[in-house]
Order: sequence, then C-alpha cells, then structure tokens
Amino acid sequence: MYDLAAKLFPICRSITGNGFRQSLDLIRKEIPDINVHEVPSGTPVFDWTVPNEWNCTGGGIYKLNGEKVIDFADSNLHILGYSIPIDTIIERDELLEHVYTQPEQPDWIPYVTSYYKERWGFCMSENQKKNLKDTQYRVVIKSSLQPGSLTYGDLVIPGETKDEILITTYLCHPSMANNELSGPVVWKELINYVKHLGIRRYTYRFVINPETIGAITYISQNFDALKKNVKAGFVLSCVGDDRTYSIVESMYANTLADRVLKNVLKYHYPKYKSYSFLTRGSDERQYNSVGVELPVCGFCRSKYHEYPEYHTSADDMNLISPKGLQGAYDVMVKVINVLENNFYYKVTCKCEPQLGKRGLYPTISQKGSYNEVAAICDFIAYADGRHDLISISDQINVSADNLICIIEKLKRNQLLSFNKTPYL
Amino acid sequence: MYDLAAKLFPICRSITGNGFRQSLDLIRKEIPDINVHEVPSGTPVFDWTVPNEWNCTGGGIYKLNGEKVIDFADSNLHILGYSIPIDTIIERDELLEHVYTQPEQPDWIPYVTSYYKERWGFCMSENQKKNLKDTQYRVVIKSSLQPGSLTYGDLVIPGETKDEILITTYLCHPSMANNELSGPVVWKELINYVKHLGIRRYTYRFVINPETIGAITYISQNFDALKKNVKAGFVLSCVGDDRTYSIVESMYANTLADRVLKNVLKYHYPKYKSYSFLTRGSDERQYNSVGVELPVCGFCRSKYHEYPEYHTSADDMNLISPKGLQGAYDVMVKVINVLENNFYYKVTCKCEPQLGKRGLYPTISQKGSYNEVAAICDFIAYADGRHDLISISDQINVSADNLICIIEKLKRNQLLSFNKTPYL
Amino acid sequence: MYDLAAKLFPICRSITGNGFRQSLDLIRKEIPDINVHEVPSGTPVFDWTVPNEWNCTGGGIYKLNGEKVIDFADSNLHILGYSIPIDTIIERDELLEHVYTQPEQPDWIPYVTSYYKERWGFCMSENQKKNLKDTQYRVVIKSSLQPGSLTYGDLVIPGETKDEILITTYLCHPSMANNELSGPVVWKELINYVKHLGIRRYTYRFVINPETIGAITYISQNFDALKKNVKAGFVLSCVGDDRTYSIVESMYANTLADRVLKNVLKYHYPKYKSYSFLTRGSDERQYNSVGVELPVCGFCRSKYHEYPEYHTSADDMNLISPKGLQGAYDVMVKVINVLENNFYYKVTCKCEPQLGKRGLYPTISQKGSYNEVAAICDFIAYADGRHDLISISDQINVSADNLICIIEKLKRNQLLSFNKTPYL
Repeated sequence: MYDLAAKLFPICRSITGNGFRQSLDLIRKEIPDINVHEVPSGTPVFDWTVPNEWNCTGGGIYKLNGEKVIDFADSNLHILGYSIPIDTIIERDELLEHVYTQPEQPDWIPYVTSYYKERWGFCMSENQKKNLKDTQYRVVIKSSLQPGSLTYGDLVIPGETKDEILITTYLCHPSMANNELSGPVVWKELINYVKHLGIRRYTYRFVINPETIGAITYISQNFDALKKNVKAGFVLSCVGDDRTYSIVESMYANTLADRVLKNVLKYHYPKYKSYSFLTRGSDERQYNSVGVELPVCGFCRSKYHEYPEYHTSADDMNLISPKGLQGAYDVMVKVINVLENNFYYKVTCKCEPQLGKRGLYPTISQKGSYNEVAAICDFIAYADGRHDLISISDQINVSADNLICIIEKLKRNQLLSFNKTPYL
Repeated sequence: MYDLAAKLFPICRSITGNGFRQSLDLIRKEIPDINVHEVPSGTPVFDWTVPNEWNCTGGGIYKLNGEKVIDFADSNLHILGYSIPIDTIIERDELLEHVYTQPEQPDWIPYVTSYYKERWGFCMSENQKKNLKDTQYRVVIKSSLQPGSLTYGDLVIPGETKDEILITTYLCHPSMANNELSGPVVWKELINYVKHLGIRRYTYRFVINPETIGAITYISQNFDALKKNVKAGFVLSCVGDDRTYSIVESMYANTLADRVLKNVLKYHYPKYKSYSFLTRGSDERQYNSVGVELPVCGFCRSKYHEYPEYHTSADDMNLISPKGLQGAYDVMVKVINVLENNFYYKVTCKCEPQLGKRGLYPTISQKGSYNEVAAICDFIAYADGRHDLISISDQINVSADNLICIIEKLKRNQLLSFNKTPYL
Repeated sequence: MYDLAAKLFPICRSITGNGFRQSLDLIRKEIPDINVHEVPSGTPVFDWTVPNEWNCTGGGIYKLNGEKVIDFADSNLHILGYSIPIDTIIERDELLEHVYTQPEQPDWIPYVTSYYKERWGFCMSENQKKNLKDTQYRVVIKSSLQPGSLTYGDLVIPGETKDEILITTYLCHPSMANNELSGPVVWKELINYVKHLGIRRYTYRFVINPETIGAITYISQNFDALKKNVKAGFVLSCVGDDRTYSIVESMYANTLADRVLKNVLKYHYPKYKSYSFLTRGSDERQYNSVGVELPVCGFCRSKYHEYPEYHTSADDMNLISPKGLQGAYDVMVKVINVLENNFYYKVTCKCEPQLGKRGLYPTISQKGSYNEVAAICDFIAYADGRHDLISISDQINVSADNLICIIEKLKRNQLLSFNKTPYL
C-alpha cells in the first residue's frame, strides 16, 4: 500500500483532469476490473453542475532576470487549484493579492482551490512570501480550463444478497499523502480482501471519485441502486498515519455503519476518537444529506481538520507509514467480518444448554473456573433472537470479532440458529 | 417597567379585594383593553370555592399610652393576610400567640397569610418582637372579610391560528417587589411587544390573577379553550433581580414550553438554573395538575424560595432593577420569536445545495474557510423535515434565535420549505 | 432464623441425596405445608438430565499408621462433591492429582464439585496440603452415586389474583453459612410473613431447590404456570452477613422485580450495590435464560463471588448474624408491601385538590410551611393515572414504602382511585 501511495504522490490531481485519470490508471494496474466513468462538463447533478475540466502542466513565479522564486515542478501545491492560465509581468502589490499562505505554519505551503470562481493564484509558505521583495515579477500558469469530463471509478462485487456495503474514497488532492493517497491505497487492498472472501453475504460497492462534486455526481447517477441496497457505508479518508483512529458519525450516529465501526474500534484501539456529524467534511456529507440519507460514516486515523499538517505540503510521505495503512486496513477487515456475521442469533434449546456434556464447560466447579467460559455463557444468555451480533457484543463487552469463533462452536453443536431479522 | 412597579409597590394587595383592583387599574392605564373579570365569593372552582373578599385599611399594635409599636402605615406586611378585624386590649402573652416572625432573619418582617382559616395576627421582625415588654397592648385591625368577589384580568391577542401561547402572572402580594411586581410589569410590556408584531402565527393569551386560587378560578372558567388551544405557557414570577435566570420545568420537562425556554436561556445566560417540577410553587402547579396537564413552565430570575429576601420586607424596590426587568423581558421576546419560527424545515433540493453559486459559501477553499458557514451548512444538514427549529438548534449548537436569519436567507433562495408538523 | 441456620449447618448437602431431604425436613418442621417433590434420576429436563443421586457418609486421608490427615467428620467440605467411592492406598504423587486447594487463601478449605464427570477427590487448605509428606496414604470415600432422585420443595400461597410473586432459594451446599443457609432461613420467615398478610393481591410461589439443575428441573416441570403468572421473582442468595446489600439485575434490568428491589434498597441502604446481569451466577441465570425469560433478579447482602470467604470453609456461622438475616428479611418485607400497593393511582378531582379543608395542609402560609406537606403534594402531582407507585416514588424521591400511608390518607378522603393498569 505504501509503495503504491509513493507512486501516486507526485501526480498533480484535481477534481477533474488527467491527474485523476493517471492516478486511477495506476490503481487499475493492480485491479483492472475497476470501471471508469466519464461525466461531461455541464451535466446537471442535483443542485450542481459538473464543472469544466482543469489541467495544469507547469507554472511559477520568476524574477525578471529569470530566476525561479517558486515553481510547479517543486510542488504542485504552488499553483492555486483550478487557476486559469496566465503569463505576464506584474507589480509586487498586485501579485500579493494572488498569493495564499498559512501564516501560523510559516514553513508549509497550504493547499488552496477555487473550483467555482475563475481566478489565478499561487500558494507558498509564509517565509517564501516574505522574500518577495522585488517590485515586479513574472507569473506563469500553464493551465487549461475547458469543457471535458469528470472521472470516477467503481466496482460492484456481488454477494449472496443484493444488500450492499459501500466503501468509498476520493482521489482529487495533488501531492498530499494522508489526506489523499492513504484512502485509495487502503480501498484498493480492501477490494482484494473482499474478492478473496469464500462466501459473501453482502454485495460490496467500491467507489472512488473526486471529493464533494464527485460524490454528488456518483449519487446522482446511482441514486436508486444506492437507496435500495446500501445497508452500511464507509468513507475512507486520512487512514495512513500512526496517531489514532477516528470515526465521523453519521447524522443519527446509530446506523449499522456507526454501530459496527464503533464496536470494532472500541476493542482495536480503545482510545479511538468519535467525532459527531457536526465535524463532517468529506463525502459522508453528501451520503447523509437531506433526501439522500444513507447510513454512511467516515473512517479516519487522524481526522482531516484535526492534525496540523492537514491541507499543507507537510502532509507528505513521511506522515504516513506502512504500519499506519495496515492498521486502517485491519480495522476495515474486522468491520467486514463482523458485518458478514451480523445476524440475529437464537439459542435453539429452551433454558440454559448444558455446555459441559459438549466439552464447552469445565467439569470441575471451583471458584474462578467460570471465568474461562464467561464469554460463551454471556453470548448464550443474550442470544434470544432479539439482538444482533453487534448488540450482543456491546452488551456483554466482548468484541464482535472475537465472538465469531464462539458462534462457530455453538453452530457446530446445533445450539444456535440465526436470521437476518429479529425473531418474533 | 421599574417605574410602574414603584407605583404599584405601596398598595396593599391580597387574593381578593380593592388592592388587587387598584393595582390592575394602574396597569390598565397603559393597556386599557385588558378585560377585568369578577367572580363572586362562594363560586365553586373545581375542588375549591372562591373565598370571601378581604379588605384592610389600617391597624397596628400600640402601647396603652397610645405610642405606636408597629403600624400598617409603615408596612402593610405587618397585618397577617386575611386577618379578621379586632380592636381590643390584651395581655402580652396572648398577643405573642398572634405574632409571626422569621427568627433567622431578625431584621425583616415576614409575609404570612391565613386565607382559609379565620384568624387575626401581626407580622414583625424578630427584633421588634423582642421589644414587646409591656404587660398589655392595644391591638387594632381595621379589616373586613365578607362576600364580594375575586378579580382577574386577561387579554387574548389573536394570531393567524387559534394555537395559543399563554403568558400569565399573578398580582396578590402586598408590598414586595421581586415576588410580586416584577411579573406584572414584564407581562405588561410583553403585551406591547406582541401587539406590535407584524405577523402573529400564534394567538397570545395574557392572564393576570391572584396566585393559586386565581389560577384555579381562571382554569375552571376557561378550561375548554385552554385545553384546546394552549401549545406552550409561561408563568412569570420573580423576574426583576440581577442574579441569575431560572426555569421551573413542567411536569414532564419536555414540552414545547420547556424546550423553547431552555434553548433561549442556554445561549442568553449559559449558567441559568433549571429547577425540576418538584420545586414548583407558583401557578405552574395548577396548569400542570392532574386533569389540567397543560404545557406550562415557570420563568424566573432568582426563583421564589431560593433567594434570602423571598417573602419578607427585604424584597423591596432595591432588590429589583430596570436592568433586571429588561433581561427577563429580552428572554421572553426571544422565546416569542423562536416560537413564531418554530416550524419543521426541509431543504427543497435533494443532496447538498450548492451554496457557492448563491453567494452563501466562500469561493476560495482553504483550511478554516468553512468555519464561517458552518452554521448554515449544519442547518441544511438537519433540515430534513423531521426536526423543528428548536430541535435543529439543540443538535447543531447554534441558538434558535440566531438561526432565524439563516432561515430567511435560505427561504429567499427557495432552498427551504416549512411546515407546522413533521414531513412524512 | 440464625438458630435454624445453626441446626442446618452440619448437614452434608448436595444437589441430590439425603442431606438435602434432611435439611428440607428441618425447615418443614416450622412450615409443614411445604410440598416435597422427588424427580427420578434420568428424567430429561430441557437440555439436561437429572443426575444420579449422591450420598456420602464419611471418608478421609490417613497415614499408613492409621493417623488421620483430614476427615469428613471434621468438615464435609473435605470430600469433593459427587466423589465416587474409593478405599485404597496410593502414592503421594497420585494423591496430589486428586487434591484441591485455594492457594491464595492458604488456611481455608475450598468448596469444589464434579457433578457431571465421575471423579474422586479431596479438598483441603493449602497448608494442609503442604504437610502431605509421606510417600503413601490411605484414601477412603464412603459414597454412593446411583439412580435415585432430585428433591425440591414448593408452596403456593393464593392471593386475590393469579398473578404471582416468585421467591426462590437453593439448598445444596454443604457446611457453608452465607452461601447456603442464609437464603433458606430468610425464605422460610417470608413464608410466615406472607401467610399472615390480611389481604394478598398476589399469589406467592415459594420454591426451594438445588442450585442450577434444581432450578432447571423446577422450571421444566412448572413452565406454563410460571410463564403465565409470574410478575416478579427474587432469588435469595447470600443474605446473612452485615456488609452490604446487593441486587443482581435481570437481563433487561428494568422488570418489575428490578424496579421494586432497587426502589426499596435505595432508601433502605443507599450505598447498596447494583450488579449487572453479566455477573449473574445463581438461579436468576435459569429464570432469565432464552425461552424462559421471566422477570427475576437476585437479592444478596454480600454477593456470591464478591466476598473473600465465598465457597470456602470460612463461610461459616461467624460470617452471618441474626442482624444480617433480619436486614435482608426487612428488605423483602418492604418489597412485598410495595408490590401489594403498586397500582396506578389517579387523583379523583380535576386540578389540585384543596388539602387545607381536609386537614392535610397547614392553614398558615409562611416560608417553609410547605416542606411538611411536600411529599403529599408531589404524590398528588404525579398521580395522573400513568405512573405506578414505584414510578411516582422514583420521580418524587420519596420511598414507595413511605408513600403507602399517604395513599391511605388520600383514599380515606376519596381523593384517589387506583387501577392495575394505566388509566387511558
């Protein structure tokens, strides 16, 4: 995962354009069956319209003697996203009106865009700005902004039922690592995991799009299928660093997506952070929006907006790690396993089953001997047909993930039945 | 408001009699259309009966040489409320059985009444009592207790619907300021505010009565209209000092009245005090009583029973202030504004509306730029037709009062519909 | 109660056998109408089978010179419960495989059993084990394990309705005091209390059985009656010491049994301990099990598993006391009284009744005078036909037990009606 992220890092992406396509192609080298869709500029998508396509191949600020001040080749963050082309000599004061910095983080280049209003501009560190002392500079942006299309990818992996788990991420930021490439590379690896599952109860819908406008476009073009089938969804964003784990709750905070992710995180990393929907910021916004209202929450390690390097040049390949990516992947694998096993369970006999005669209970009864079998006894006590796996786990304080093998044991002993819906 | 309270202060009021009428007339000088009702003594009102009318014109305790010990002219609190007339010379010991003091507050005259058992008595400070050293005294009470009537006032200001907001206060305590006159003067000013509202969704019912028996009488005589129409009600009591703000919750603590008052207080004065219904003591008792069960809560600054000067001569014009009264008035004005706008709101488009093209969202996207528009975005996220204004406010932590202008902006952009009941 | 416990203490009981019968006979000397039931070995009871009957008359470990090391006559805990008979000379090393100790409590003999796997064994203190230095010992267990029957007792005391309160305990541990004899002796005394109640709204079902298998057998043989009639049930266990009071909640923690026991304990002993169903361990397990699902919780003083002497020889007659037993009895008497009075109450008049004219309210109104009558006023405020006694008590913070006399006063004044179900 880390290596793929490193390959993707240098590409200049945006919400449209060749950078996105080139990045998606790199991912499709590993998973060729991801479908690619192109939606023409001008297509109405709900209250929005697909914008013109932007491509940028170079640019920078130069002293009149030709000496470079900043250059796209050094960091594609230097060009304001969606800048219109320009090539002119201007006064220092006018230039400064087109310069964006993050003064509290004086060494870092901020990531700034102007998707829906035509502008040109440069981003640089506050310290670089302080060095702009000449009276005139040459400014160059080699970009094009014209009708084209917005690109997204998806892959639906069928399961035993049409009920769907949605796993989505975005691919529109230029050279940033945690807040861009961590999501797609973990997403890609999860496709491999799901493909190799022996049995799939759920159909899995994997989606990769530019953030916000891409999600709106995707929902607009797949509305009926999403509304009919999606039972839980997850937006993967900023899943590559080592610092913590986070959930961004869905609007009502109690959907299947919230329940399973919180259950897994509670045992995987008890200090995980739970962010309310009020702090939303990635595509969970669109999936939870009025009229869409899908059970989707966000999954992050250090959440966007919450870590200092966010949306700056410091969000680079040093910020993420193979271990960080692996941790996020492991969580999502557990999420999938718990979802696949999240039935309503019911003990098949009336009253407590006799576990001892099945070798599931110690034959010597002494103070303390019960502790070893508490989890199986507690599971049995709550397997009354009214609780699903996650609910039982939450009540008996044993991770759902760990209950799966207990379920297998009980099934082998004909002690457990299960159902997609509660028993009446 | 303070000036009117000062004019009302010297009058000797009780639950019936000319003091109440004289006080109501002073208020009606400013709001002449308040209706005055007289209910004859003996009228059955639910489990109660309207008592005889009491009037008192003077009295006191005098030494046998005629020297004054205490006198009604100095404070009308000196005469036990509803005292029967007397004029006699008695032994000191017998007199002391008719003397009421508040020993823990030795300089203050307590306010004591005996409405439903015929007695005579005097109230004085503990220190005054200590000076009663003569063996005999002359005691005089110039009062009458005989069939008459109980007086109350009301004013119904019609709105677009018959749904009613009830705003009620009482006017039966003699010379005390916070626990008496603050309520009526704020109540009077709210009538002016409501009258001058351009559009009134609600009909407003303003009621002023003697406490307890007056509320019982009022409810008894207006039961069907109250039960049919009142959607929220507020008892104004002790709303004139500067120390805090308080709500006395309705019985179930979650009526529209509770919700709106708590929402307003949370932002107006975050340290406000929320008292449970178990601490009730004013007319919210009757409005919440079994079989009446109206959504009414109490609004106070320092709550009755909870401030030291309560029901003593120290509750005088120094305890209340123009600023104190104004604060309470401001809260109630916000309550009215929020109620008038408390609809269920629903965004008219599917998915997130594009605020940028309407000038409601920054065109430059940089870290932090979202904060300025968080309130409007959060409002939109929760405007799903299932939340009313107060509920949205409570969920997104922005005062309902402040959301009103956001609602106006969204309405102007055809982005919002609203309804009296939840959208299905 | 303490004296009966002392008489029962020396008997060697188990889940079957003459010890249980002899113990039950001692209780039946005081309550002869307790019914005795014998269920043959081999009888299927749900997923279980009634085991063979075990009787033990002696045994021990002896040096080859005949000197006693440990002997059943000193403590019947020395013989592993359900040991098969043996009489042989064995090597020290082999003996040690049959010796059970509790090393962390080196002076106490642990209580250990092997009901469902045939074994022989001895229990002793860790210090006794350390003295086993000979190379060979003679081991003797004079026991029989063969078809017989399991014994239980019950007594149904009819009331005005068929609705039942279940009070159950167990009688299968050998010489231990808190975790065995406290339950049966308090249970016996409660039978006397219930018999002498003038009026009984409820039918009371008293059950005494060996723990676990006895409860399973009892439920199996009385399933329909239990499911149809039981409204609340209590397992009495470890109710004889002086240290605390405890509830073991039912599975959903909110049944009538939980509500009444918590209400009583809250006022009887505010520091009582509330244990979740996850810590269950006595017959509440079976009564709450899937398919049985009866509203039964456990009542203890120091809960089993939670006090150091639990399941050891230190749980002797010094651990329990007449005062400890009396405290548990008093709690259960209050539980019964509250249950008998736990109706839905409704004030018969509309609006607040006038308590003053009925002598239930002070005729002088002065600051503080209300406090004396707050409980009656609060009761009236919440007696709206939607709350039962326990719910009113919980809301107004007055013990249900203390509200019973207020209810009587209000009934005498025709101010209160009551009903088994909520008023509509």
